[in-house]
Amino acid sequence: MTRPVDDLDLRLAREVRDLAVKQRDPASPYFRGDRRRFMLQSVAAAGALAALPRPASAQAPLGATVHDVPPDASKTPGYPLADESYGTRSQFETEVRRRFKTATPLSSWTMTPLEAGVGIVTPSGLHFERSHGGTAVIDPAKHSLYVHGMVDEPRKYSMKDLRRFPSISRMMFVECSGNGLTEWSKPTMRTVQFTHGLTSTSEWTGVPLSTILNESGLAHGAKWLLAEGGDAAAMTRSIPIDKAMKDCFLAYGQNGEAIRPEQGYPLRLMVPGCEGNINIKWLRRLEVSDAPFMTREETSKYTDLLPDGKAVQFSLVMEAKSVITSPSGEMTLDGPGFYEITGLAWSGRGAVRRVDVSTDGGRTWRRAALQSPVLPICHTRFRFAWKWDGDETVLQSRCVDETGYVQPTLGQLIAVRGLNGPLGSIYHLNAIQSWHVARDGKVTNVHHY
Amino acid sequence: MTRPVDDLDLRLAREVRDLAVKQRDPASPYFRGDRRRFMLQSVAAAGALAALPRPASAQAPLGATVHDVPPDASKTPGYPLADESYGTRSQFETEVRRRFKTATPLSSWTMTPLEAGVGIVTPSGLHFERSHGGTAVIDPAKHSLYVHGMVDEPRKYSMKDLRRFPSISRMMFVECSGNGLTEWSKPTMRTVQFTHGLTSTSEWTGVPLSTILNESGLAHGAKWLLAEGGDAAAMTRSIPIDKAMKDCFLAYGQNGEAIRPEQGYPLRLMVPGCEGNINIKWLRRLEVSDAPFMTREETSKYTDLLPDGKAVQFSLVMEAKSVITSPSGEMTLDGPGFYEITGLAWSGRGAVRRVDVSTDGGRTWRRAALQSPVLPICHTRFRFAWKWDGDETVLQSRCVDETGYVQPTLGQLIAVRGLNGPLGSIYHLNAIQSWHVARDGKVTNVHHY
Repeated sequence: MTRPVDDLDLRLAREVRDLAVKQRDPASPYFRGDRRRFMLQSVAAAGALAALPRPASAQAPLGATVHDVPPDASKTPGYPLADESYGTRSQFETEVRRRFKTATPLSSWTMTPLEAGVGIVTPSGLHFERSHGGTAVIDPAKHSLYVHGMVDEPRKYSMKDLRRFPSISRMMFVECSGNGLTEWSKPTMRTVQFTHGLTSTSEWTGVPLSTILNESGLAHGAKWLLAEGGDAAAMTRSIPIDKAMKDCFLAYGQNGEAIRPEQGYPLRLMVPGCEGNINIKWLRRLEVSDAPFMTREETSKYTDLLPDGKAVQFSLVMEAKSVITSPSGEMTLDGPGFYEITGLAWSGRGAVRRVDVSTDGGRTWRRAALQSPVLPICHTRFRFAWKWDGDETVLQSRCVDETGYVQPTLGQLIAVRGLNGPLGSIYHLNAIQSWHVARDGKVTNVHHY
Repeated sequence: MTRPVDDLDLRLAREVRDLAVKQRDPASPYFRGDRRRFMLQSVAAAGALAALPRPASAQAPLGATVHDVPPDASKTPGYPLADESYGTRSQFETEVRRRFKTATPLSSWTMTPLEAGVGIVTPSGLHFERSHGGTAVIDPAKHSLYVHGMVDEPRKYSMKDLRRFPSISRMMFVECSGNGLTEWSKPTMRTVQFTHGLTSTSEWTGVPLSTILNESGLAHGAKWLLAEGGDAAAMTRSIPIDKAMKDCFLAYGQNGEAIRPEQGYPLRLMVPGCEGNINIKWLRRLEVSDAPFMTREETSKYTDLLPDGKAVQFSLVMEAKSVITSPSGEMTLDGPGFYEITGLAWSGRGAVRRVDVSTDGGRTWRRAALQSPVLPICHTRFRFAWKWDGDETVLQSRCVDETGYVQPTLGQLIAVRGLNGPLGSIYHLNAIQSWHVARDGKVTNVHHY
C-alpha cells in the first residue's frame, strides 16, 4: 500500500531536523548541556565504562539513595536492612534516560543509555519512552479492556479477569521505528544513547492475545484488529489478524513485577518484532474488522517515504540491526592495547544468527562471540576482543539474522529508501553504524560507507 | 569433613525459633502487621495477584512516584516526559522485601515477595538480602581487589582495571542456604515470601575468575581460594580452586546496570549454584592456598548437623527445589473454576529437566509446562492449568534437574538429615512444599508427607 507524503510528515521532519541542528550548535544550550556531561563521562570511560565517582555530599543521583561514605567500609557498620524495602541503585551510578527535546514533553521520547548497559536486560527505570500525550495514570482496579467488532461475543475484562488466564513470559526487545531518525543524511548525534537508544529489552509477562480473541470468537472475514490506548493521545494502530493470533500478547508484567507506568501500566499490547508504536500502551480497546482502520499513526505518520514520492504503509517489522555500544561516541580510549568491543544486535524476524565486527572501516570482518542465551526477537550481546595499535580507524558491526538477512550499509539502505524527505528519511533506519577512533583515542559518530 | 555442633549453631537456631514463634502469636506485633497486610492481599489475590488499588492520596508506596489519578486518563494529558529520568514503579504496586526480624538489622535478611513475581527475573529492588554487618557503602573509584597467596605474581586491581577485561553475562539464581530454615519441624511461616523468599534471579555481568587467577598464575599445589568481603563483617569463605577456575566470575553488573549496593556493589564473587553466602559481596581480596581456611562461616555456621551429632562442612551446592508461588499461603481462591498454578524451580547442578505438579496431595503427579528459556542454574517458571472442584486439597510441586535428581519430600529429607537441632535443622531445606486449599478457598502452609 502506498500514499503520497503529506504535510504532517514534513512538519515532523522539519521539527526534528531543527532540533538536531540546534543540538550540534556550540552556541545552543542543548550542546552545552551535552558537552558538560560527556566530558565527565570520558574521564571515567577510558576503555570501558567505569562508574563515576560522586561525593556523598552531592545531590542524590536519580534512582539512588545517598548514604555516608566511610573511609573504610570494613571498619564501619553498613546501613541496616529495612523492615520493608524496595531497593535503589548506588549513589555512585549516574546514567539516566535522556529526552530528545521535542517542542512538548507530552509528545516526546527519552533514550536508553546503551553505552552504560551490560548484558541484555534493560533496567526498567532506563527503558526508553515514546509517548504522544504524556504518561497516563490509570488505576488498575478501574481499568477495563473491551473486545468488540467482528466477533461472535463482545467482552469486557477487568485487570483481575485478565490475570486469571494462562500466562506466558517472553524476553523481548521493543524498538521505536524512529530510532536513529536524525542519522540519515549526516552523523548528527554524539553518543549511542542518542543514535540508538530507542530500543530496550525486558522480560514481559501476560496473556496470549489469541486466548482473548478466541474467548470472543472471530467472525467470518475478520482480517484486522484495532488496538486503542487509554492515554490522552488515544493511540490507535491496526494489526493484521494473523499476527495478532500468532504471537501477540497482553502484558501486565515487566522484569518480574508490574509493567512500568511509562510502558503502559496496567496493560500493554505486545507485538513481537514490530515497531514500538504498535505495541499499544495503556491498552483499553480491541476492535476486530475486515480492513485496516487507517488511523493517523499509519497514514500521516509511521510510514516510509520512497524515492518516487510515494510512501509504504504497515512496514511493521523491525529488520536486523546492531550497534557497538563500547567503545562508542564521546568515549576516549586510554592508549593502544586491549579493548573488548561489545554491543547489541537484534532482529524483529527472529534470532540473531551472527554478528561480524570490522575494526578497519569495513575492509575485513570477523565474527563476534554471542552471549547466550540468544533469544528470538531479543537483544543479543556480542563481544569481540580487539588490540588497538593506536592508528585511527573505524569500528563497525553487522548483524545477520536467522532468515539470512544481512544488516545493510547506509549506502545500500539509501539506494532503496532514498533521501528525499527533509531529513533524508525518518523511520526504520537499520544501517551499519560507524564509530571513528582518532589517534588520541577519541571516538566519534561518523558516516563511513 | 564433619565436626561436632557447637554453641553458635544452637544460639542461632534458638533465636530463629523464638522469632518464628513470635510471628505466629496473635498477640505479637509481628503477627498483627502480617495479618493486616495479608488480609488486604487476599482481597486482590483471588486466583491470582491483581494489583492492589491504592488511593492517590495515600502515602507513596516504596519505589514509586505518586501522581494525581484523573477520572479518565484519555481526557487528561499524562505527566510529561522528564529531560533526565530513572523511572519508578506504579504507585498502585505495593509488594516489598520484608525483613525476618532478627535481633539486629545489621545481621539480618529480607525476603523476595515471590507471590507477586512473574517471569524469571527478580526486580533488582526486590532481590533478597542477607548481610552480616549491614550494607557496605563503597566508592568504586577507591575500591581495590587484591589477589595473593599461592600465586606466581600477586596483583591489585581497580574497578576500572577489572572493567577492561573480557566479560560474560549469566542469568542465574542466588539462594541463601538458610532459605526455609523455619520450616523443618513444622509449618511456621504464612506466605511463600517467608518460606522461600531467600532466592532471586538476576542477569549478572562481570569477569571470569579464571581470567584473573590466570593473570597471577596459580602456584603448584594451589587447591583452595579465600574470598573476603570489604564489609564490616569481612565475610570470608573458602572455595575449591577447581570450582573457582570452572565457572565463577566477578560481577559488577546486575540486570543491565551496576550491581546493587545490597548485592555487593561494586564487586561480587559469583559462585554458580552454590549457597548464597559464598557469593562474597563487596569483594576485596582473593587468597590462594593449599587448604580451606576454616573461617567462622564454614565452621560455626553454614554447616549441616547430621543425626549422629556431627556436621557436614562445605555442602556448597544448592540442590534442586521448586515452589508453587500462586496459589500460595494467605491467598484465597475465588470459588471453584480455572486457576493457573505457577511457580519457580531451580537447581544448583544445572538446568531443570521437569517439574511435576500434584493437586491431590502427592497421590498423582502431572507434568507442568516450563517457560522458555530454561537456563542452567537459573529460576525456571512453570505453569499448570488446574480446575478446582471446590473440595479441600493439597497442592505440591516437584523439581527434577538435568542430573536426574528428584526434589525430595520433607520426610525423605529428614530421614537423611535428622531433626536433632533446636529447629530440626537449619540449612539446605529443599523439600517439596505443600499448600493446603480449604473449602472456602483459603490457602495455608502445611506439612503433608
